[in-house]
Amino acid sequence: MHALTSIHQDLLHIRTAALQAVDPALAVRRYLQRTSSRLDLGATTWDLDPAGRVFLVAAGKAAVPMVLAAAELLGESLTSGVLVTRYGHAGGAVLPPRLKLFEAGHPIPDENGLAGAQAILKLLAQLEPADHLLVLLSGGASALIPCPAPPVTLADLQRLTNLFLSCGATINELNAVRKHLDLLKGGRLAQAAGSAGLVALILSDVVGDPLEVIASGPTAPDPTTFADALGVLERYALLENTPPAVLQRIQQGATGQLSETPKPGDPLFDRVSNQVIGSNRLAAQAAVVAARRLGYTTLLLSTRLQGEAREIGKVAAALASSCLKEGDPLPAPACLVLGGETTVTMAAPGLGGRNQELALSAALGIAGLPRTAIMALATDGSDGPTDAAGAIVDGQTWNIIQQHGRSPAADLFQHNSFPALQAANALMFTGPTGTNVNDLLVILVAAENQDG
Amino acid sequence: MHALTSIHQDLLHIRTAALQAVDPALAVRRYLQRTSSRLDLGATTWDLDPAGRVFLVAAGKAAVPMVLAAAELLGESLTSGVLVTRYGHAGGAVLPPRLKLFEAGHPIPDENGLAGAQAILKLLAQLEPADHLLVLLSGGASALIPCPAPPVTLADLQRLTNLFLSCGATINELNAVRKHLDLLKGGRLAQAAGSAGLVALILSDVVGDPLEVIASGPTAPDPTTFADALGVLERYALLENTPPAVLQRIQQGATGQLSETPKPGDPLFDRVSNQVIGSNRLAAQAAVVAARRLGYTTLLLSTRLQGEAREIGKVAAALASSCLKEGDPLPAPACLVLGGETTVTMAAPGLGGRNQELALSAALGIAGLPRTAIMALATDGSDGPTDAAGAIVDGQTWNIIQQHGRSPAADLFQHNSFPALQAANALMFTGPTGTNVNDLLVILVAAENQDG
Repeated sequence: MHALTSIHQDLLHIRTAALQAVDPALAVRRYLQRTSSRLDLGATTWDLDPAGRVFLVAAGKAAVPMVLAAAELLGESLTSGVLVTRYGHAGGAVLPPRLKLFEAGHPIPDENGLAGAQAILKLLAQLEPADHLLVLLSGGASALIPCPAPPVTLADLQRLTNLFLSCGATINELNAVRKHLDLLKGGRLAQAAGSAGLVALILSDVVGDPLEVIASGPTAPDPTTFADALGVLERYALLENTPPAVLQRIQQGATGQLSETPKPGDPLFDRVSNQVIGSNRLAAQAAVVAARRLGYTTLLLSTRLQGEAREIGKVAAALASSCLKEGDPLPAPACLVLGGETTVTMAAPGLGGRNQELALSAALGIAGLPRTAIMALATDGSDGPTDAAGAIVDGQTWNIIQQHGRSPAADLFQHNSFPALQAANALMFTGPTGTNVNDLLVILVAAENQDG
Repeated sequence: MHALTSIHQDLLHIRTAALQAVDPALAVRRYLQRTSSRLDLGATTWDLDPAGRVFLVAAGKAAVPMVLAAAELLGESLTSGVLVTRYGHAGGAVLPPRLKLFEAGHPIPDENGLAGAQAILKLLAQLEPADHLLVLLSGGASALIPCPAPPVTLADLQRLTNLFLSCGATINELNAVRKHLDLLKGGRLAQAAGSAGLVALILSDVVGDPLEVIASGPTAPDPTTFADALGVLERYALLENTPPAVLQRIQQGATGQLSETPKPGDPLFDRVSNQVIGSNRLAAQAAVVAARRLGYTTLLLSTRLQGEAREIGKVAAALASSCLKEGDPLPAPACLVLGGETTVTMAAPGLGGRNQELALSAALGIAGLPRTAIMALATDGSDGPTDAAGAIVDGQTWNIIQQHGRSPAADLFQHNSFPALQAANALMFTGPTGTNVNDLLVILVAAENQDG
C-alpha cells in the first residue's frame, strides 16, 4: 500500500533524526563551541590561555567518539586525559598521544577498569585551581571505572553486585551502597578535582536523567548517606553475606568515622557544571521536530514509560486507535512520541526483545486499521539478545504473519517476537548506533488522503 | 497537606461531572426535547400528532431510569412499551400502566428475559408506517432479551455461551454467532419494526462504542454473516459440541437457505437513527471540561485504554511524573484523562478490583512526588468483587500504607489492593451509580503554588 509505505518512510526519517540528536560525537560538538582562545561549553565559558590547562576524563561505552570530538576542538589546549571504554568499543580509533585509553569489563568491573580508575585519580591529583577538567560520561561508566576505597577490593565489589542481583533491591538502593565504597562515584570525582573548573557532558541512559544516578553520579551531589547504605543491607538481610571490608566501611561511615560523599548544597559544586547533552528526551524531542516537519501534528507524551512490553504495546495500540477514530489526543495526521524502557518478564524461552514484543503486541491491537504504524526502537541498535533494533508494525502486520503460516498470538505468548516480525519483514536492523538513550516509541496516524 | 487536599477535592468534583454526563435519565432528557406536539430527538424530529403513535422498547441495566425520563416527556403521546431490566434494577419504580416491565437474568439469559423479548417482538409486529419507536439500550441488554430463532432454544444459547467461555474466542466472534441465532440482535429489531421511524438512544458499555456490538446491535447493521459464524465454530473446533439446532441453523444460513441479518447499506436503516447518548468518551470529555473549569490544562489521551491493570498503573505514574518534571505532555497545572477498561490476571487470591490495582501500582510509581494525584474509577460504582468504586492515590499513599504496617508491594503482588488502599483511606465508595460506561483514569498535577 502506497500510503503505508509513506508512513514507513516517515518513521525511518524520524528515527534518523532522533538518533542524530543523541549521536555522542555530534552531541559533544553541539555543546562545545570554540572561538580562538575561548571554549563555550553551554552554561560556562573557558579561557584557553596558557595559564589554564585543560584535562579530560571520559568513561562509558561512547567515550571514544565523545573524546575524539572534544579533542578535535581542544587541539593543543588539551593537556592530557584518560578514557575508559568497554572492550571492543575503541574501534581502532587513533587518539592524540596525550590521551591514555583503557578498555575494560562491563557489566562486571575488572582489573583493567580498576587501572583506568586509578589513572583518573592520578590525573585528578595533578589539577590546580586554574585548570579545567572536561568529564565525558556515557552509559556503562559506573561499571567501567570501579574505584574501591581500600581496604574494599574489586573482588568485594563484584561479590556485592552478585549479592544484589538476587535480593530484589532497586538500582537506587544498590547505588546508595556502591557510592559509599568508591573513590569516584557519588560526587567524589568532582571532589577529587579540587578547585579546578569542571564541566561534565553527560549522555544519559537513565530514564528521567537523574544526575546522581547516571554513571553513579561521579560529578553530582549524593543525596544518600552511609546510614542509607547500611539500611539497604539490613532491609534485604544482606549483612551476613556482605564482604567484611564492605560491611566494616559502611558501619564506620554510618557511625561518623568516615567522611560522607559530598551532599546537595556543598559549595564544591559551585564550580561544577553538569550538562545532559544526550538523553531519551532529547531524542524524543528530535523525533517530534522531525515529525512536525513532515506535516504531522505532534505530542511528546512521556519519556518515563516503563512496564511489561506486551501491555505497553496495548497502550500504544489504544493511542493509535484513538487518534484514528476519535482524534484523541490528536487528529490525524498525528505523531505521538514516547520514550523510556519497558521490560519483558520471560515465562517461555522465545527469541525477541522488549521493543519487538511491544511492537508485536501493538500489531494485534491495530490489526486491520488503515493509515497507522508504530515504531518501537532500542536506540543502541540492539533490542534484547537479538541483532534487531526493534520493529515497525502497521494494520497489516498481524495478518501478514498469519499468511506466513505462523500464529502471531502464540509467538506473542511465547515471547517469540523476532521470528514473527521477521516473517512480516517488520524488523529494523540498524547495527550498533554508538549511542544509548533507552527506547523510543513513535505512533503515526496518517491523514485520510495522505498518499506518498 | 492542604495542596493535596485541594487536588483530592478537584478529583471528586471531576468525578461528579463525569458521572453526571452519563447518568441514564439525564442523558435521555438531554437528547429528548419536547415542544408542544413535536419531539426533538437530536438528529430527528417526531410529530406527536394523533396520527403518529409512539412506542417504546428498552433493555439493559439502566432501562428503568431511561424509560422514566422518556415517559415523562412523552406523556400521553406514549402508546405502549416494553422494558426489560436485570433483577433488582427496577428499584420499585412506578411506571405508567401502558408500560410492561420484565425483570430478567444477567449475565445468563433466562425465561423471564425470553418472555420480555417475545413481548418486544409482539409490540414490533403492531407497528405501522406512521408510528414511532423509541429504543433505549444500556449495558446488559444482550443477555436480558434473548430471542432464539426456533428451533434454537434458550437452553441452546446458554450452552453455547458456556462453550465459548473456555475456547479463547473474542467477544466479537461470539457475537457473530449469537447474532445469527436471534430474532432481535444484529439489526433484526430494526427490521421487525417495519416502516416505523426508529430512534435508538444508547448508553454504551463497550470501548469505542461500536453500534453493532453494544447490546449485540439490535438496531444496527450487522457486518457479520452466517459464513462468519460457521467460521468461528470451525476455528475454535466447536462444531462437535455445538447444540444441534444451533449448528443446523448456522449451516443452513451459510448455504443461503436462511435470510441474512440486515447488512450495512440496507435501506431499512434509512429510517433508523442510532445515537450514543452516554459513553466512556462522553464521561471523559465531561471530566476534561470540569478540569478545565478548575484551571487545569487538559488532555483527553484515549478512551480505548486496555491492558493489565498494574502495568497501566505504571503508565499513569509515568505520565504524572512527566507532567510534573518535564511538562510532558502538559505543564502543571495539568489534567490527563483516559478511559477504557483494564484487566487483572489473577495469580493470587487477593481482594481488589482492576481500578484499585491500577491505583496501587500508580501509587508506587508516584511515591514521594508532590502535587500529584491519580483517580481510577469504575463508573458503575463497583470495582471488581468489592463495594469500592476505585481509588485516589497521591505521592504519600504508598508511604502511608507502609506506616500502617502493611507491605504495599506484597499487596500489589498478591492482587490485594483493597486492604492496602483502605489502610491509606484511598478508596472511593460511591454506591451503585446507575450507569456503566467502563472506567476512567484521571491524572492531576497541580501548579507549584496551588494551595486550596
